[in-house]
Amino acid sequence: MAFGTQALQRLPLYLRVLRELAREGRAYASGAALAGALGIEPVVVRKDLARTGVRGTPRVGFPIAELIAELERLTGADREVMAVLAGVGRLGSALLGYPGFRRQGLRIVAAFDAAPERCNLVLAGTPVFPVATLVETVLRLGAPLGILTVPAERAQRVAEQMVAGGVRAIWNFTPARLDVPDEVLVQREDLAVSLAVLLHRIQERNA
Amino acid sequence: MAFGTQALQRLPLYLRVLRELAREGRAYASGAALAGALGIEPVVVRKDLARTGVRGTPRVGFPIAELIAELERLTGADREVMAVLAGVGRLGSALLGYPGFRRQGLRIVAAFDAAPERCNLVLAGTPVFPVATLVETVLRLGAPLGILTVPAERAQRVAEQMVAGGVRAIWNFTPARLDVPDEVLVQREDLAVSLAVLLHRIQERNA
Repeated sequence: MAFGTQALQRLPLYLRVLRELAREGRAYASGAALAGALGIEPVVVRKDLARTGVRGTPRVGFPIAELIAELERLTGADREVMAVLAGVGRLGSALLGYPGFRRQGLRIVAAFDAAPERCNLVLAGTPVFPVATLVETVLRLGAPLGILTVPAERAQRVAEQMVAGGVRAIWNFTPARLDVPDEVLVQREDLAVSLAVLLHRIQERNA
Repeated sequence: MAFGTQALQRLPLYLRVLRELAREGRAYASGAALAGALGIEPVVVRKDLARTGVRGTPRVGFPIAELIAELERLTGADREVMAVLAGVGRLGSALLGYPGFRRQGLRIVAAFDAAPERCNLVLAGTPVFPVATLVETVLRLGAPLGILTVPAERAQRVAEQMVAGGVRAIWNFTPARLDVPDEVLVQREDLAVSLAVLLHRIQERNA
């Protein structure tokens, strides 16, 4: 029943293919078909599907509707999670307008920025407030998730304000390492790290 | 000498801490100090550093300058890699303006967009050309890396144009799965996947 990080990353991919098959009117899908569509090893798909607890039938496959429901539960896409976002620069604006988040159950209910000209606007349906009101607004809204897209040098301070407002998880898009209480979950999204991995892989190919 | 993906992701973090220590005038760093600064298990740091081939001295530590040079080599930060970017929307613009890339050796030499009003501009130092000129421009520039930030439904087509222009690696920020020749390296940067992992972790905490 427990999924590792690598397996968790595959679940949304299965969901996408299964939803497509459902739209085509299919009721059953085989592990081999999923593996083929995604270019993942069949043995890996088989193990992942076994862990969902949904039972397949030999030569018929897995019931798509049931598998979608279980994968949505496992990835949290069957519930709405409220989030606030701090830092409405280019990256923050891109995230506010990202169409896939809503489908996955993420609802960004408020954004914050330090620049007065960006405040009291509504961006992609989300109101933007002065960062000075962050703590009280987050307390009032009860959002459990904070998305951090401020400049690195402000990251720690804004993270502390988010925690003071009661968020229990922070999605950190800054390169700063955050010092927050242990019970606050932090997930880093570090493009510099991804780039380093990519450049290393390119170099290995060339060697 | 071979690093797994998890280890590769730690190398830029070591680099950041080591550069800070170098700026403070320090010449040696212990694995334990790096582990402490980054909140990584000391045994993991020790193994990573051993794989770099740089020798430490007991009770003195590792020579910082040598370790930085080797980590830069391993992460590709000691060379410039030319890249082109297709899709100058919010995410594309955010990446063009991302300050960390340049320091890591990534040089985005040209951008492309389908919208005439975005073309023939210079954004964050990068000229933006009509996407119709992509193949010839990439051929002319000889950029080995393509960054894909177009809408998902255009991803496959633009990827094919990048490959026709000679790129050997694609950094794919769209949710589309690309069908490209095996020799073209594809690295996906899928926020939907990251979000699913995050929501699952929040859910596990709450359970």
